[in-house]
Parts: sequence; C-alpha cells; structure tokens
Amino acid sequence: MPETTAVRWRRDIHRHPEVGFTEFRTASLIAGRLADLGWQVRTGQEVISPGARLGVPGAEQLEAAYRRAAEEGADQRHLPSLRGGNTAVVATWQGARPGRALALRADIDALPITESDAADHLPARDGFRSAHDGVMHACGHDGHIGIAMELAERIAAEPPEAGSLTLLFQPAEEGGRGARAMVPSGVVDSVDVFLAAHLGLNQPTGTVASSLDGLLANAKIRAVFRGVAAHASLAPHEGRNALLGAAAATLAVQGLPRVPGHETRVAVGAIHGGTSSNIVPDTAEVLLETRADDGDVNADLEDRARRALRGAAETYGLGVDIELIGSVTTARADRGAVELVEAAAAARGLRLVTPSAESGVASDDATAFMRRVQERGGSACYLAVGADLAAPHHTPRFDFDEAALGLGVDLLEEAVRRSL
Amino acid sequence: MPETTAVRWRRDIHRHPEVGFTEFRTASLIAGRLADLGWQVRTGQEVISPGARLGVPGAEQLEAAYRRAAEEGADQRHLPSLRGGNTAVVATWQGARPGRALALRADIDALPITESDAADHLPARDGFRSAHDGVMHACGHDGHIGIAMELAERIAAEPPEAGSLTLLFQPAEEGGRGARAMVPSGVVDSVDVFLAAHLGLNQPTGTVASSLDGLLANAKIRAVFRGVAAHASLAPHEGRNALLGAAAATLAVQGLPRVPGHETRVAVGAIHGGTSSNIVPDTAEVLLETRADDGDVNADLEDRARRALRGAAETYGLGVDIELIGSVTTARADRGAVELVEAAAAARGLRLVTPSAESGVASDDATAFMRRVQERGGSACYLAVGADLAAPHHTPRFDFDEAALGLGVDLLEEAVRRSL
Amino acid sequence: MPETTAVRWRRDIHRHPEVGFTEFRTASLIAGRLADLGWQVRTGQEVISPGARLGVPGAEQLEAAYRRAAEEGADQRHLPSLRGGNTAVVATWQGARPGRALALRADIDALPITESDAADHLPARDGFRSAHDGVMHACGHDGHIGIAMELAERIAAEPPEAGSLTLLFQPAEEGGRGARAMVPSGVVDSVDVFLAAHLGLNQPTGTVASSLDGLLANAKIRAVFRGVAAHASLAPHEGRNALLGAAAATLAVQGLPRVPGHETRVAVGAIHGGTSSNIVPDTAEVLLETRADDGDVNADLEDRARRALRGAAETYGLGVDIELIGSVTTARADRGAVELVEAAAAARGLRLVTPSAESGVASDDATAFMRRVQERGGSACYLAVGADLAAPHHTPRFDFDEAALGLGVDLLEEAVRRSL
Amino acid sequence: MPETTAVRWRRDIHRHPEVGFTEFRTASLIAGRLADLGWQVRTGQEVISPGARLGVPGAEQLEAAYRRAAEEGADQRHLPSLRGGNTAVVATWQGARPGRALALRADIDALPITESDAADHLPARDGFRSAHDGVMHACGHDGHIGIAMELAERIAAEPPEAGSLTLLFQPAEEGGRGARAMVPSGVVDSVDVFLAAHLGLNQPTGTVASSLDGLLANAKIRAVFRGVAAHASLAPHEGRNALLGAAAATLAVQGLPRVPGHETRVAVGAIHGGTSSNIVPDTAEVLLETRADDGDVNADLEDRARRALRGAAETYGLGVDIELIGSVTTARADRGAVELVEAAAAARGLRLVTPSAESGVASDDATAFMRRVQERGGSACYLAVGADLAAPHHTPRFDFDEAALGLGVDLLEEAVRRSL
Repeated sequence: MPETTAVRWRRDIHRHPEVGFTEFRTASLIAGRLADLGWQVRTGQEVISPGARLGVPGAEQLEAAYRRAAEEGADQRHLPSLRGGNTAVVATWQGARPGRALALRADIDALPITESDAADHLPARDGFRSAHDGVMHACGHDGHIGIAMELAERIAAEPPEAGSLTLLFQPAEEGGRGARAMVPSGVVDSVDVFLAAHLGLNQPTGTVASSLDGLLANAKIRAVFRGVAAHASLAPHEGRNALLGAAAATLAVQGLPRVPGHETRVAVGAIHGGTSSNIVPDTAEVLLETRADDGDVNADLEDRARRALRGAAETYGLGVDIELIGSVTTARADRGAVELVEAAAAARGLRLVTPSAESGVASDDATAFMRRVQERGGSACYLAVGADLAAPHHTPRFDFDEAALGLGVDLLEEAVRRSL
Repeated sequence: MPETTAVRWRRDIHRHPEVGFTEFRTASLIAGRLADLGWQVRTGQEVISPGARLGVPGAEQLEAAYRRAAEEGADQRHLPSLRGGNTAVVATWQGARPGRALALRADIDALPITESDAADHLPARDGFRSAHDGVMHACGHDGHIGIAMELAERIAAEPPEAGSLTLLFQPAEEGGRGARAMVPSGVVDSVDVFLAAHLGLNQPTGTVASSLDGLLANAKIRAVFRGVAAHASLAPHEGRNALLGAAAATLAVQGLPRVPGHETRVAVGAIHGGTSSNIVPDTAEVLLETRADDGDVNADLEDRARRALRGAAETYGLGVDIELIGSVTTARADRGAVELVEAAAAARGLRLVTPSAESGVASDDATAFMRRVQERGGSACYLAVGADLAAPHHTPRFDFDEAALGLGVDLLEEAVRRSL
Repeated sequence: MPETTAVRWRRDIHRHPEVGFTEFRTASLIAGRLADLGWQVRTGQEVISPGARLGVPGAEQLEAAYRRAAEEGADQRHLPSLRGGNTAVVATWQGARPGRALALRADIDALPITESDAADHLPARDGFRSAHDGVMHACGHDGHIGIAMELAERIAAEPPEAGSLTLLFQPAEEGGRGARAMVPSGVVDSVDVFLAAHLGLNQPTGTVASSLDGLLANAKIRAVFRGVAAHASLAPHEGRNALLGAAAATLAVQGLPRVPGHETRVAVGAIHGGTSSNIVPDTAEVLLETRADDGDVNADLEDRARRALRGAAETYGLGVDIELIGSVTTARADRGAVELVEAAAAARGLRLVTPSAESGVASDDATAFMRRVQERGGSACYLAVGADLAAPHHTPRFDFDEAALGLGVDLLEEAVRRSL
Repeated sequence: MPETTAVRWRRDIHRHPEVGFTEFRTASLIAGRLADLGWQVRTGQEVISPGARLGVPGAEQLEAAYRRAAEEGADQRHLPSLRGGNTAVVATWQGARPGRALALRADIDALPITESDAADHLPARDGFRSAHDGVMHACGHDGHIGIAMELAERIAAEPPEAGSLTLLFQPAEEGGRGARAMVPSGVVDSVDVFLAAHLGLNQPTGTVASSLDGLLANAKIRAVFRGVAAHASLAPHEGRNALLGAAAATLAVQGLPRVPGHETRVAVGAIHGGTSSNIVPDTAEVLLETRADDGDVNADLEDRARRALRGAAETYGLGVDIELIGSVTTARADRGAVELVEAAAAARGLRLVTPSAESGVASDDATAFMRRVQERGGSACYLAVGADLAAPHHTPRFDFDEAALGLGVDLLEEAVRRSL
C-alpha cells in the first residue's frame, strides 16, 4: 500500500483512537493541518452547542482524555478550544467567486472495543493497532478522516474558483450524539448540497451505494437501577438486588414485539453492577437501544422499553433512573444529491450498487445534518464507499481494504469539482 | 477514644485497605512490628501454598497493588516475600517450657466497596476513611488486626512461661480463599486450642458469643458466558448476546428452592458485560454464591446453580466457563474451646449471649483451620466479640464501636493466660 | 386389612373425592350417618358464613358438582342445605351432665390431582382409586373422615356422661379457605379443648407428634394478567401477551429472598393462558403462595409477591387482578392440650416423636379454630398421627398405611374419655 | 343482507364452529350438499393421508366432537368416512369435453377462541354466535365455505362445457396442518390453475389483492416440560417445577433476534401447567411458533427456539419433549394465475390493491398446494377478497362485511368461466 496522505492519517488516527467527545488529539491535529493548508478553520463552541450534546462523559474522564491527548502529540494551538468535550472542527474553502455551497461530513470518534492482537489482524501486524486499551476505530471513521484530509490537500493544491466547500468533522457519531449538537450553530444552514460518505457497510471495494434511504431512527438509553445493599448472608432480605431489575428488563427489552413491514432492532448492550458475590448490589447500569426505519415505530419501541425498565424496577422493589443518551432520526436521500454522486462514480469507474435491507441497515446521525439542509432547501444524501472488510463493523477484528481510501478521495473530489 | 495500640493500628489499616491476596502493605507492617517485638515471624510461601489459593487476582492487578504498597510505606524487609499474593504472616511466641499450643486467627483483607464520605460517618469525620477508591474495611478485619497487635505487645511485655502462642494473619477471608491455602503448610498441625474471633455479627459491645455453631458452608462461583459479538443493527442475528445468559442464570439462581429445616442462601452479586448499546456483547461475567448450614445441602445448591449456568448458556447459544473461586465448609465448636472462652469472658465481666439464627449467619473460612485442628485432636471454636455497629457488615457506612477493641484484647489475653 | 368402619368410610370417600366447597356428597353422607347415630347435626349456613369463604369455585362448577353428588348417592336429606358450597357439618354429643367441651376437627376436601393408575398403587389395585378424573384425596383427609366416623360410632355406643364432644367437619382446608369461614358462626366459641389431628406428615405408623408448633402462615394468591389479543403474525405489535407477565412474575416470585432464622416458602403452582400458538393471549392466570413460620415474615413475602405481580404487568404493558384466595395464620400449641394428647398416646402405646423442621412443615387452617379457642380461654393443639406413606403428600401416588386409622381412633377416643 | 346461499351457509357454519380435524358436521354437510348438486365427491382417506397430518387432537377429543356433530345435524351419509379426523372433502365437476383443470381451495376449520357476546357484535345480535364455548370462526373460513357453496350451485346450474373445476375443502388450515396431508393423495397433481382466496386480510370490501407473495413460512411447536411433583411446603426442594422451564423458555423465545431485511415473527401463545398453588407442578405445556418470509430464516429461528426450550429445561433440572405440530412453507405467485385474477376482478368492477408488508402478513398452508401445483407445471396464486372487518382476525369480536361474500362468488365464477 503506498503511503498516501489518506493512509498515513488513517493509521496514525487508528493507533490513537478516542471515543465520542474525547477526540482531543484527533480534532486538534485535523484543525492544525487544515489551518496550515489555508483552510478557514473553526473549532469548539464556535461550531458545537455544549448543551445539545447527549451522553457526554463525566468531567473526570474528559480531563483524563484531554491530558492524554496533550501527552500524545495533540496540536496545542487548537487543543484548548476543544476542552470539555467540544471536539468539533469545521473547515471551509471559499472560492474567489460566489457559487454553490457543498458540505461533506466526516465523523471522527472511535468505539469502546478492545482491538484484536491476532497476528493476522493487519493493524496488529503492521504496527498501528490501538495504543489505547479498550478503545478502537472499529467502524472506519479513521478512514473517513484519511479521505477528508487527502481531499483537503487536493483542494488546497488546486482550489475551485467559485462556490465553497465545507468539511464537517463531527465528534460522537456513535450513539447519535454529535451531529445534533453541531446543527444549532448553523454550520449547514447555507449548504446547497450535503454528502455524508461511509466506508464499508457490506459493499465491496470499487463500488458506491448512492441512495441509502433506510437509515434507522434510534433511541439509546442508559438506565440505572437503584436498590439497597446488604450482606448476602447476614441479611439478604434487607437488600434489594439491583441486578434483578437489570436482568428482568434485559429479557423484556429483548422480547419487544416485531412490527410487520418494518425493520426494527432492540439491543441490550451492557449490564454492570456489583463487585462481589457476598454483597447484594445496590446499583446496576444497563445500556440499551431501539431502532426502526420509521420514527413513530421507534418511538413506540422506546416507550415500551422505558415501561419495561420501570416495570422491572417495580417487580424487585427498586428505583430506576432512565436517561436518553443518544437519539437519531431517519432521513431520505434527495434526487439531486444522489445524481451528483452517481455521475461522479461513473466518471471515476466505480460501480453503483443498491443495497438490500438484508445486507444490514445502520443508523447515522448525519441525518441531523441532512434534515437541516433539506429544511433550508438544500439537497442531501448518504452514500457508502465500498470497502472489503476483514470482519464486521463493531467487532475486534474489523479492518477495511485501504485501497478504498483513494477511491473515496477520487469520488468526492469528482463530486466537488462537478458541483462547484 | 484513647489512642491505644489497637485503635492506632485499626485506623491506619482502615485508611489503607487492601483486598484479598493484595494485603502487601498490611502484612509487611504486621510482620515487621512483630519481628521487632521478638516474635518468630514466617511469611509468604513458608506459610501459604500458592496453588491452593482460589480467586487470586491477575498478575497485573497484583503488581499494581504491590507497587502501591511500596509507595504507601510497606515494610521493605518483608515485602518481597509476599510478592505474587502470598500475603500470609504467622508469628509464634515460644514459652521457655513446653506446654499447650494455642493459636488465634486474625483475617486481614478488605472488601471491594466504596466507603461512605458522609459527614456523620466516623472514619470520614476523623480522617481515616479509605484512601483507596472502591476498597473498604467494611467487615471489621482492621479491628481484628488491631486486637491482635495489642495482644502481641502485651504477650511480648509479659511472656507466658510455658507452651506457645501462634498468631495467624490470613489473607483473603472474604470469599473463603485464604485459610484453605495456609492449612497445607502445616501452620495449625500441632495446635491444641484454636480460636477465631470476629467483631460485631449483630452482638452489642460488651458481649461475647462463644458457640457460633451455625457457620454456613458456601461455594463462590465466577461464570463467564461467551457469545459472539456483532453490530446490534447491521447483524443482530449473527451475534450471541452473552448478557442474556447472565440475565437468565441470575433469575434462575435467585429462584433455587428453599430446603425445609435449613438455613440456605443464594446470591448473584455481580454482572459485568458489554460496553455500548450498539454492540452485541460477546462476554459477560457473573459472580454468585450459595450457602447452607449443611455441607450436603450446599453441595446440592451449588450443583443446581452450575446447572442453571449451563442451561442459561444453552438457552441462548452461548458457552460458559464456570470457576469455583471460593469455598468454605461448616464447622462445629468443641466443648473445650468454648469453655475456655466462657471462662475468660466471665473473668473479664463480658456478658455471654447465644445468637439466634434470626440474627443472621455468616460464613468464615476459619472453618478450614478449625477442621484441621479437630482432625489432629485439638479443640476449636469461633466466637463473636460484640461491637455496636453504625451500619451492617459489608455496607458503605459500616463502622464499629472501637471500645470493643480493648474488650477483645482483654478477652483473648485472658484466654491465653488461662490456657498456657 | 379388616373392614373397619374407618377403612370402609375412607375407601368410599377416596373413591369419590370432591375439592374444596364442592364436598356435597361427602358432607351429606357424614351428616346423614351422624344424625342416624343420634348426634345433633348442623349443616350449611348454620355453621359456615358464605361471605367469609375464600376461593369459592364459580356457580357453574358448584352446580355441576352438586348434580354429580346427587347422582353418586349423596344423602338427599342434607344435600339441599349445602347448596352453593356451604359444605360444613358440625355434630355434637351432649352428655347428660354439664362438663368440659371438647372439639375435634376433621377436614374433608380433596385436591386437584390426577391419581396414579399404576398397578402397585394400592387404591388402584384394590378398586377404590378416584372415580373423578383430576381429583384425588392425596393428603389423607379421607382418612380423617374415617377416623372421625368410627369414633362417632364408639361414642354413640358408649356415650360420656358429662360434658360435650363436637366433631367439626370442615370444607376447603386446602388453600386455607374453610375454617376461617366456620369461626364466625361460633362453632368453637365455647370449646375448652380443641384438637386437630393429621395423618402422616412424615411420621411413621405407631407414632404421635403432639406439639407441631411450626405450622406456617401462608397467603395464596390468584393473579390474572390482562393484555390485548392479536393475531400473532398479522399484528403482533398490537397485542399485549399476558403470558409474558405470568412468566416474569413466576421467576420473580420464585426468587424472593430467604429470611435468616425463618422457615419460608414461595411457590408458583400454576400458569394457564392461551389456546393456540398464533393468537397473542389476552389472559393468563397464575396461582402462587407464600409461607413463613412467622406472620410478619409471611406478610412481607406476600407484599413482595404482589409487587412482583404488579411490576411484571407494568413491564409488559398489562393489567393484573390480584385476589387473595386463601390465608392461614400460625398458631402455638397449649401445654394443656399437648399433655392430654401425650397421656392418651402413652395409654395406647403410641410412641411420641418430635419432628424437626427438616422433616417438613405444612400449613393448616385448623389454626383459625385454634386461635379462636385460645382467645376464648380454651386450650388447643395440632397433632400428627403417624402413618407410613407410599409417596409424599400431594403427589399422584400418595397413599397411607390404613393401620394408622385404628390407631388414630384409639388415640382420640382415649383423649375424649380422659377429657370428659 | 339478502339471504343468499353464501350468507346462509356462512351463518350456519359460524354457529357450529369446529376446530382443525374435528370438522365433522361441517365437512359432512358440504359433502352431502355437493353430492346432491351433482358434483363428484370424495371424502376422508380418499383425499387425506392420516399419517401426514400434524397436531391431530387426541382420540377422546375426536370422538367427542364426532358425537356432537351427529347430534347437531351432520349428514350421516358422509360422517363415517370422516371419523378419526379425516375431515377433508374434494368435489369435482367434469365438463363434457377435455380442457384445463382449475382448482379452488376453501379452508373449513375454526379457532379455539371464545366469541364475544357483546350486544353490538353482529353474530350475537343476529343470533348466529358460536354455540360452542371456546370455539369460534374468527378468521373468516365460514365465509370461504359460503362462497364455495354458492359458487358450486352456480356451476351446477350452468356447467362449463370443457375442462374441470375442483373444490378443495381442507381441514386444519390453522396451524398449517391440513393441506400438507391432502397433497400426498394427489388431489392437485393434475391441476393447471390453482387459486386460494382469503377474506379480509386488512383489505376493504370491494377490493382484490392478487399477488400476495409474502406468505410466511412457519413452524409450530408444542413443548412439554417434565419435572417432579412435590408438596410446595413440605418438600419444595424435592420438586422440579415444570413451570419455571416454561417461563424461562417463553422469555427466551420472545427474545429471538431480528434478521435484517426479513419479516420474522415469534410467539408463545399458550402455557398450561399446574392445578394448585401448593403443589409443585410436574408438567407444563407451551405452544409457540416462529415465522419468516424465507424458509432458511425460519429454520434458523426454529432451531434457536428448540435450543431455548432445551436450555430452559436444563436450567431448572427438567426434561422436555418437543413436537412439531404445524409447519408451512412459503410460496410465490405465478404470473398466469395472477393475470387471471386481475382480469376477473376488472370484469366484475373490483379494485385491485397491492398490500404492503406493513398491512400484515400471514401464513397459509395453501402454500403446500401451490408448491405441488408449481412442481407439476401448473400456475398458482393466493389472493385476498377484501372485506371490511369489525375487529382483527383471530380476536373475539372478529366479523366481516357479508357483502364481500357475493363479491367473492362473482370474482371466482368469473375466473372459472374465463379459465375453462
């Protein structure tokens, strides 16, 4: 693999993954390089509303991540503006003459997964496996950064004469927590065409899927059951075991009914409670989510999940605190944006594919940008840049074919040049 | 409260709690002081068999605790012998003439509980609250150390002429993991009378309960369910959610049947699995225990719990690894040892009480020592030194009346002097 | 086995078992025979308060049982007075002179169990297996009737001169539903000594246990979950599956905590709901009970069980109706009554035994009579007449050694003659 | 509503509903009337293979239904041939000249549902509510019979000259148990065009849906958990409560995962076990089903459901017997048959509609006939004859607009006359 800009960025970011709202090193390096290239760069509270974020880590965790970023080579010029989890960057190249405004989204956060250290896992073999235990770029966002940074270089080298291009680097896509917080700052209010590209999504290298309509709405919930601690042998009857609420709610949420004609999902992804077998635990945390291809269907599933949590608490004499920590809406692709992508793909020899629902459907909070663009009269779409995968998204051996990075840069550059 | 030796030791140890097999600071300081006082001191593998320990923490955790102990003032003369979790100390005072051999047990480990910082929690108010987040002496073992250390001073100051006294400082009483590993080293093989004293146990200050026969047998189990990770939205059907096994097993174990005429206990004390709502988790850990006042009844409950774990795994297409991490047997008090305690109590003006089962029954792996002593023809008993409590054992606001410490020293000194 | 009166009655009643409040044939035959023998007989609403009964079958079921009784040879003189489920009989023999009042209780109901038809099941082999599918005398109440009827003959043949003897034939002992409804009619208000004898209870033939103190308090609950029916394929999301509430409540009730120092029991004995796999069922019935050797402990378990039912309903978006269908209190034996039994046993050569809790503890609503007698200054006890069993109480192969019947008659006759 | 033949038959059959394989009255009356009209009639084992039936009721239940049919006016000429549950009827009208062979399917079984007796439920108001408690025509099969019988009269009155028409009256459509047993007898082996029409299915009166491709494959399972009975208070630990297996399996099956891109269904429709709260029940029956729009997906769900049943049994120390009691495959519509239906609808002024998956998808074992016809080179489709509904299929207040009956007869007559 030639050491292209995209590959170099991808590997560096892959080695230093940061979860949502802690992308201090990532965002500062992006901002620094783009400013050096001549882009107009805005960061932190200029482009993100702190109060509109969901699921922000605690202050202690934010500070630890901030300090680590400083130790690991963050760009000190931009780091302070990001403090407290405002890890968004927006860079704009304004052409000499007025024209259309195009915006591209790249998400920059990693996942709380421990990366495989198997010898045949390429990042491990080639020395760019995650340096942070328990955190991993397992969805390809590192590649999105790589594509955007190489595109930024090409644009700076040969700028368009008219119109403008904006690169949106958003934190906390996982969980649907970041885009919604950038929209209020107006960063896409004047955009004519918005594109969000995602690598992989079960499409092979060399393909493009231009009309991913079926993005799922979702609701992500953190529930904390609160019981009463007790010595499990001396006084079990004085305790209220918070784990029992977690266990019953888990089985109930998993059993929420199907809805004919709709793609739905339910998942309990985490339970944490207790420290020892001989203490009745007074706290148990549950992370869960619902998804559906229709906002109303998802709202109904969310309601039922909340009822299940409350009911499970009542069943075992517990309290429960329920917090919405992420929420994504659905969005439809616009014909204009789709045609732009299709023309660009054809020009660069990429094959257009139409994914079936069966190939799997995800959520992406790019929909928050898309809806805003559409409300203001612009045109938007969400596309997949095919990439062969070593293992599925969100798993410890996830890895993608880096050849897709150059194809992604080509495709987006083509779209930019056709559009402006 | 006068700053007696017992109180001073108690508060220092309370401030620096260490969980089972990581009592590096605790054990090294005990060993150092006793050696300075003239006791014959043995530590580490001289008095504990590494392979007979259950539920030993991982190497990384052991090393971190070892380093912390060194930073927090451990006695460097003895620290190296304890490395790797062999945190047992045995000290003997040999009288000039032959005679009976008496042994006392003090357990030294803390619990994985975060101590209260409420203003009216005495350790917080008086500045000896745990300095280690998530670890706390919430069962009174710090007091046991205090009593033993003051007794050791008194014995050194006025030694018995005949016979011997052995002080057994055992790690990892919680979970029933330490005593069983000291027995094979022969430390109680020649003991004529063995006493294990515990503070509190729902008896008020000024009382002694000399015949705690009803110690429960127990089995502590760590189960790890193993499933298949998957993206919760793209491919939920390819995942096997390990949490479902944990949830179903938890409800099943909690529902194991009563056994008429027997005290039984079942508890699931911890579930840990997953990191995010959108990843089907492939691993979930469960900690549970069964107890009964009869070894066969407990064995049956343990069998059923194991079956429940296997069945829950099968139900959800998971694997499960089941590990016994602690196991305590029952033991009966011997008339001889009980009478010794009763005579000592009477001599020192302490009131004898007979606890009912209703007042709560615990397990203690002192039974491993007791059974060995009894097999070799000695006499043993387990006694409670009453102490008013601020909150129940194993809870964040646990605290005991320090006046009980002096009473405990008096009682045991009396027993020693009567016995030797 | 000689065809004694006790054996003859036992076998006839065994062949025609009737569940609680449907003992039309049973009670009418008892009343008829006793009246013929010269006893003063009261039946129906003279001796039972309809409104104080719990768990009365529906009108249709009562009528069907009434008609069957008529077809199967009920005594038409007494049958009408029992209609509607008032199936209690009280017979008194008044001596010529005033004196002490002694009362004996016999319960007369059968259980909803299908009797074994195995060749080695004696009632099957000897032709007195239950003629009613799904109903069986599986607790020995048929034997209690046999004992009482032979005793009645002996008393009529050789009446006491002073005092009075009252035989209380109570319906619906199973479930704790009948005695409580007889108490308000005053049938034990003037009683000096009250005895309730039960066959078996894990004691062998030839023994008597005179001080069964540990009768358990209980609460029996019928819960009906109410959901919404739907086609399981066309509209599963429109349904609310009542079975899910039943399933979750079952697991929760089974998992109610132990209470140290107490005998407790929890049991879900029945779930019924649904007719077909492709209809989401809108109704599910659950029968459960809690028991404890202490009224307050049982009340706490009952509260928790009710909360579990409500919580499980909430979890799955259901309603739930909770009905107390049986309730028994605890009672203690009085020294006077116990000594009477012990003297009688000694006189007749029966061996006194003291059952341990381990041998199993039951509930019996004779405690309602006992408490009333004690409140009014009388003396009461509950005793076991030992009988070897072929299989445990309440199982399809239950059968008892009929030799115990004669021993029971002897014991009670001796107690009567000593008492009056 | 005019008293047409279709309405008259519909109401009579509605009043006398019979569940699958007990349609003795229904089938005998159909056979009798068709024979009287001149159709060639075959019944019983001529047209159904007893051994290929699934989920046949027990012999006792079959006989009771048989006797009831005789009492309620069954046609004695045909009744004996149906005995034992072989309740299929096939009637053929052979034209004078050779020609195409057309076959129509009508299913004739009712559901185990208790019909509403609300005043505004039309069958109750107009006096044709079910006379059989707990059984109801709640899916419209009574209407299918009405349509077929009026069509049979019209054909007999004005027979086609060429080709043949076969009317297939199949038992036990509910559960997917009847069609599969008629196929082996060859009744559709020579058919050129096969149509199966169903009333309602969420389409309004006056419409026809001609291409219902999405019929779901399914598997219906009856599981019986086998434990050990015990007295719930005397010896709870000796029992193995079969209900616990049923409860845990229910929650597990309900929680089987979604499969992206597929319509799937899971349902536990019934649990039955136990008779009393104080007996640990040794048996519990569960009825459940899985469905999917793809045979492999359904097979995977069925496998997982079976594993859940086995795992739940293991969890609670139970045995479990698992029986497949119904199984339906998927089928696709053929263009030829669809075009015939569309032409007939257009000719009769009925509006063609294309149902979305969202409107709900059912299973129908007409697919067994369809697949056989297609294997032999014929053309088949499954169509909905729209009918306004008072309440959803399979619910106690289900009722359809009887105006749809005449429209259904017209449509099918038109199809017949165009085809032959």
